[in-house]
Amino acid sequence: MTTTVPAPAPSPSGVSADPLGVAVLGYSFMGKAHSNAWRNVNAFYPSPRVAQKVLVGRDPAQVREAARQFGWEESATDWRSVLERDDIAIVDICTPGHLHAELAIAALEAGKHVLVEKPLANSVPEAALMAAAAVEARSRGVQSMVAFNYRRLPALALARKLIAEGRLGEVRQVRLSYLQDWLSDEGAPMSWRLRRETAGSGALGDLASHAVDQVLFLLGTPIVSVSGTVNTFVPTREGGHGPEPVTVDDAAWATLRLGSGAVASLEVSRVATGRKNALQIEVFGSRGGLQFDLERLNELRFFDAGAPAEAQGYGTILATEPSHPYLEAWWPPGHLLGWDSTFTSQAADLLRAIESGTAPSPSFEDGLAVQRVLEALQVSAAQGSRAVDL
Amino acid sequence: MTTTVPAPAPSPSGVSADPLGVAVLGYSFMGKAHSNAWRNVNAFYPSPRVAQKVLVGRDPAQVREAARQFGWEESATDWRSVLERDDIAIVDICTPGHLHAELAIAALEAGKHVLVEKPLANSVPEAALMAAAAVEARSRGVQSMVAFNYRRLPALALARKLIAEGRLGEVRQVRLSYLQDWLSDEGAPMSWRLRRETAGSGALGDLASHAVDQVLFLLGTPIVSVSGTVNTFVPTREGGHGPEPVTVDDAAWATLRLGSGAVASLEVSRVATGRKNALQIEVFGSRGGLQFDLERLNELRFFDAGAPAEAQGYGTILATEPSHPYLEAWWPPGHLLGWDSTFTSQAADLLRAIESGTAPSPSFEDGLAVQRVLEALQVSAAQGSRAVDL
Amino acid sequence: MTTTVPAPAPSPSGVSADPLGVAVLGYSFMGKAHSNAWRNVNAFYPSPRVAQKVLVGRDPAQVREAARQFGWEESATDWRSVLERDDIAIVDICTPGHLHAELAIAALEAGKHVLVEKPLANSVPEAALMAAAAVEARSRGVQSMVAFNYRRLPALALARKLIAEGRLGEVRQVRLSYLQDWLSDEGAPMSWRLRRETAGSGALGDLASHAVDQVLFLLGTPIVSVSGTVNTFVPTREGGHGPEPVTVDDAAWATLRLGSGAVASLEVSRVATGRKNALQIEVFGSRGGLQFDLERLNELRFFDAGAPAEAQGYGTILATEPSHPYLEAWWPPGHLLGWDSTFTSQAADLLRAIESGTAPSPSFEDGLAVQRVLEALQVSAAQGSRAVDL
Amino acid sequence: MTTTVPAPAPSPSGVSADPLGVAVLGYSFMGKAHSNAWRNVNAFYPSPRVAQKVLVGRDPAQVREAARQFGWEESATDWRSVLERDDIAIVDICTPGHLHAELAIAALEAGKHVLVEKPLANSVPEAALMAAAAVEARSRGVQSMVAFNYRRLPALALARKLIAEGRLGEVRQVRLSYLQDWLSDEGAPMSWRLRRETAGSGALGDLASHAVDQVLFLLGTPIVSVSGTVNTFVPTREGGHGPEPVTVDDAAWATLRLGSGAVASLEVSRVATGRKNALQIEVFGSRGGLQFDLERLNELRFFDAGAPAEAQGYGTILATEPSHPYLEAWWPPGHLLGWDSTFTSQAADLLRAIESGTAPSPSFEDGLAVQRVLEALQVSAAQGSRAVDL
Repeated sequence: MTTTVPAPAPSPSGVSADPLGVAVLGYSFMGKAHSNAWRNVNAFYPSPRVAQKVLVGRDPAQVREAARQFGWEESATDWRSVLERDDIAIVDICTPGHLHAELAIAALEAGKHVLVEKPLANSVPEAALMAAAAVEARSRGVQSMVAFNYRRLPALALARKLIAEGRLGEVRQVRLSYLQDWLSDEGAPMSWRLRRETAGSGALGDLASHAVDQVLFLLGTPIVSVSGTVNTFVPTREGGHGPEPVTVDDAAWATLRLGSGAVASLEVSRVATGRKNALQIEVFGSRGGLQFDLERLNELRFFDAGAPAEAQGYGTILATEPSHPYLEAWWPPGHLLGWDSTFTSQAADLLRAIESGTAPSPSFEDGLAVQRVLEALQVSAAQGSRAVDL
Repeated sequence: MTTTVPAPAPSPSGVSADPLGVAVLGYSFMGKAHSNAWRNVNAFYPSPRVAQKVLVGRDPAQVREAARQFGWEESATDWRSVLERDDIAIVDICTPGHLHAELAIAALEAGKHVLVEKPLANSVPEAALMAAAAVEARSRGVQSMVAFNYRRLPALALARKLIAEGRLGEVRQVRLSYLQDWLSDEGAPMSWRLRRETAGSGALGDLASHAVDQVLFLLGTPIVSVSGTVNTFVPTREGGHGPEPVTVDDAAWATLRLGSGAVASLEVSRVATGRKNALQIEVFGSRGGLQFDLERLNELRFFDAGAPAEAQGYGTILATEPSHPYLEAWWPPGHLLGWDSTFTSQAADLLRAIESGTAPSPSFEDGLAVQRVLEALQVSAAQGSRAVDL
Repeated sequence: MTTTVPAPAPSPSGVSADPLGVAVLGYSFMGKAHSNAWRNVNAFYPSPRVAQKVLVGRDPAQVREAARQFGWEESATDWRSVLERDDIAIVDICTPGHLHAELAIAALEAGKHVLVEKPLANSVPEAALMAAAAVEARSRGVQSMVAFNYRRLPALALARKLIAEGRLGEVRQVRLSYLQDWLSDEGAPMSWRLRRETAGSGALGDLASHAVDQVLFLLGTPIVSVSGTVNTFVPTREGGHGPEPVTVDDAAWATLRLGSGAVASLEVSRVATGRKNALQIEVFGSRGGLQFDLERLNELRFFDAGAPAEAQGYGTILATEPSHPYLEAWWPPGHLLGWDSTFTSQAADLLRAIESGTAPSPSFEDGLAVQRVLEALQVSAAQGSRAVDL
Repeated sequence: MTTTVPAPAPSPSGVSADPLGVAVLGYSFMGKAHSNAWRNVNAFYPSPRVAQKVLVGRDPAQVREAARQFGWEESATDWRSVLERDDIAIVDICTPGHLHAELAIAALEAGKHVLVEKPLANSVPEAALMAAAAVEARSRGVQSMVAFNYRRLPALALARKLIAEGRLGEVRQVRLSYLQDWLSDEGAPMSWRLRRETAGSGALGDLASHAVDQVLFLLGTPIVSVSGTVNTFVPTREGGHGPEPVTVDDAAWATLRLGSGAVASLEVSRVATGRKNALQIEVFGSRGGLQFDLERLNELRFFDAGAPAEAQGYGTILATEPSHPYLEAWWPPGHLLGWDSTFTSQAADLLRAIESGTAPSPSFEDGLAVQRVLEALQVSAAQGSRAVDL
């Protein structure tokens, strides 16, 4: 007599339900990261069950191989075919930004829940159309979310909680920077990412979008004016046909005034030699302070001005305790999470919102708000850094 | 015409092959971590394909639910049944230590490749039997490995490489500590982990085993003598029937003399208040030094005494570059790996060894060597810390 | 027969010379720090010998007690009397900023070498008069220096050296912040430092002056345009007669374009909760990067993009080696210098310049350049952050 | 009418008193550091006034020049002559260790208060004679102190206070290391410090003495048994006449059992490549933990297990607040103290003890206690690390 039994897939509540079919559009860096999330979300979170139905991409051979590697049942090259399938409940868009609007709006109209990589779009008008489509779809019970995955970092979710609980008092000053160095070498070649027509912008859209979203996430107050500066330090790079002008920014700077009266500074760069992926955030309030660095993503530093005077100091919280956000799903204290965990937790949050019929966060409207700030920054930069109201 | 195609599972070399069936024995902490590895290994590494066949545990309902959650096809309660199945190629043992020997030897005899969690066993005699069985099985092409997963940390694999390349010169002094604090609170209750009959030892077997393995891994030189001390700081804890004596160590200390002439110090503790999972390693050589802390597992600190004098200093290497060990399989620079990645990389190393017919590392003999050191430490502690030769 | 002999005070070259008489004007925080420098400079540096002649202040009893405590031969209340004395060679001005111009110009005209605390003055016109007087005096062999003491930090002097030697390649991006928190508490009382008429400005003059000077010191390139923002977070504070408006800034932000094409960001604050004295500097060049924090003033972090790829990382240089600037005069490696050491080294640099008849650095012209940047920042802030050319 | 007045030297209480005359024996590294303390103590602390009377050394020309540089009135070559002078109240012994006993005992017998550099002596018998002489002298109102200067570090004095107040609960585990690297290079030449007959021991006496004293200082509990190991990694070095055997230890290790039941580990080294002066201390108690590193001597890291769970973490206290030990005498918050400040504060503590007629701490008995531990460590090391009771 065998003791083995097949492992069925009932919902956590014991009710057996069909899994939610997922399609991911795009199979490179973000496609790999999102595939990883869908492959693992049910192993960590008691969320609705999912099925990795189909991975979509343009190159048939490559997407077929990627589908096999990342655990998808099928691959496809025509994204429209996915929208017609009844077994697909969620469409997850990981394509370049200029395709986001068309794909997301079509998917929402087809009744699919939609997850879109950040930034929401390459322009405010596109983002506004997407936000409008999301509002309309939501009225039909169709949900959408923009993938600002760093909201799912336990350390930053904890930061938000501490701020919301008043542990920092009144927040006055915020410092944000996102520093990378992959363009530090002048010999780094030309690519589509360095052309305005394909990439929209440089460090601005790629890095500043995360930082601006964190202002909204952590503080919950709008940005009301922006003074900005942009710069391209290496004006030409070697392309396939010789030197070619770089038409996006290598770095950008801004001072943001917030609705609450707080002021935030922002600096993003792809030429910050020696910094690999340093999204750094500092928040100073009347009763405390916080510090975070994505290169040490499991840590949050917290200063409590209410602690006994002689023992005050920035404490390094290792955000791996069961009491910390998201951690209950993962490992025991002291066992660090990786960058990829943010996508898994993000998928879980989306699934729970779909299950409960509540709007996921951050919404396309949130993504639009970020886009408006980035645009204002560019307008300001073009006008000698004059502050632009939002 | 549909553009979707099923995603087949050919081997990377294009040769379609049946996946290697895996069974994991045990479904708690380590079972979850190993399941995660088997679920993800093919998505990251171009290794032989695996199938998550069966998860084995004693409680039928719980193992059934765990199997569902962690992605296994089936669950089972009788580990012997697994050995009889032709579709199981690999048996991965995550049970408590006192079962390791019986299970591993039986699996090897049944022709299964075996992975065993650390420590290899609870005693030297058991470990010796396992090592002998592994040698015999190897002659039949049956492989085995002990799961010292920290060997797969990119930072520590890089450390080993730098040492092997002579970047540190002659290694003289090594400092090892593994500090946790989950027993710091006197109110933490009695458990099987605090009884000698079930756990064998305390911090010694649990934590020192990793540290001792790193000496062997990083330096490749044997430990030749040990002077040790052990201590139990909280002698009784509240059990189910009132206060009960703690019969294992809370902390242990040792000085190790190595075959190369180097000296290593070792300190492990479960009452190191505020340290959550701090495996800390320092290596000092005639030409350089290294520092590592598992609480910042993506970082390796390196001092190069050959750098220009005025610019010397411990550099913090963020071990996430493509040139660093294991990283090619993962994410771009600056995107941190989690603790769980070590198990995935470990699975890949095992699969590649099986594929190529070479003996995986660390072997059961390596696990036995660690066990002998731990035993010698206990003997020394019982004899007033007198140095014991190995 | 006694073996004791009086310890005469010959010059290092063996030639006995009268010591240079020093007068310090001001006896509070800066007066104490400068007194410390004059008391110790000969013990560390083989510089011309000095005599602590007279300490000058307004309150006769207090200045008398301070003179006794800090090692001065005499005290005085009338600074003009000092200028008439032949035994005073150096006048060191540590008064509030609005007195700097009158005192410094009178001292230069009286043929005294002059050291003035930073910032050089409270306004550009005053600073310009001082710079003109300094140029004129220099033609008579009378020297002057503004006390940007952080130029004497070994770590920052080393930073400058590494940049000058090309170790960073072309410098592109600089990040400067100077963060304190003594006004973080709303209950901190009103004082003359928070009134525009007495203090000129807030964090701007006090903190930004140091940061701007470091741009000039480290890079040796002028600042050509400034976009700035200022803010007062706590608009009223409790004064002697009830609540009173704060008329200076609590914090300021700027983006600076440099003559070399580099861009620098600047942020200063007195409400940065938990940061006590954090002058932080980061410099990113095409071949390397640097990081500094005044709260760890003995350390400089250096990234060398030319190091072997797998071993690159920011190294923490403990700037206490004999090969590091100023260190030969102090202690063996690893013995940390304090903040006060900068004033002692500053005094030595001034004495050597006087001895050799060369112009000390930073000059009053350098102090004026800093003042112009601070003024431009305020003009920009008043015009909606519009960039102002210099 | 002149406004200048001579600055007399009354005591702080307004009572004019003759200053206490000081003689320092020795003028190299420690002589320079102690001279610095005597030159500055009155400028920082409201202690009895001192006069730098005479610096004593063997080489007449060198000591004469050193006296001039360090601010002494006279120099001398015969230490006995100093004991006969009525104007000398304090004798401060900075000679090599083998002279300590003779000089200190003679000075005490001559009625001089005595400060002796650490370690108290090169052997237990010498130290015991000194302690006995100190006890006898104390009965005559003649005070003595051994210069464990790190007791005057604000961070460590704060550590002691936190422990004494019970902020750590019951202390269980202590980790001590003192790591330097000046012998890391095999090419470093032979010197008297590497010969047993002159230096007594190597890292043991030089470095471990500080660490052992900190156990006594921080915890106030005796060391009751020692298991030790010593090693010389570079057995011969180039001397004046060719290769010569090194007869002292390069490094030493120990496990110490304390009277309170706590256990301490100790590791000292002069071949710890990349560590310059790293006296590192960790203390783990049932309610909290502490960390300190002399290479960041203004910082103390503190973990409070009583803080809210989600916000716990090691906090970095910048020990420069007025509420911190010794700081009131120095600079405002955030202005770092240097290593040399410990000697100034030590001098102040000695002066206050002399003034009040109380026994200074640490006493010669304390120095003897340290010496006994070091001797026990050597005995243990010679007996295969067998634990030796004290």
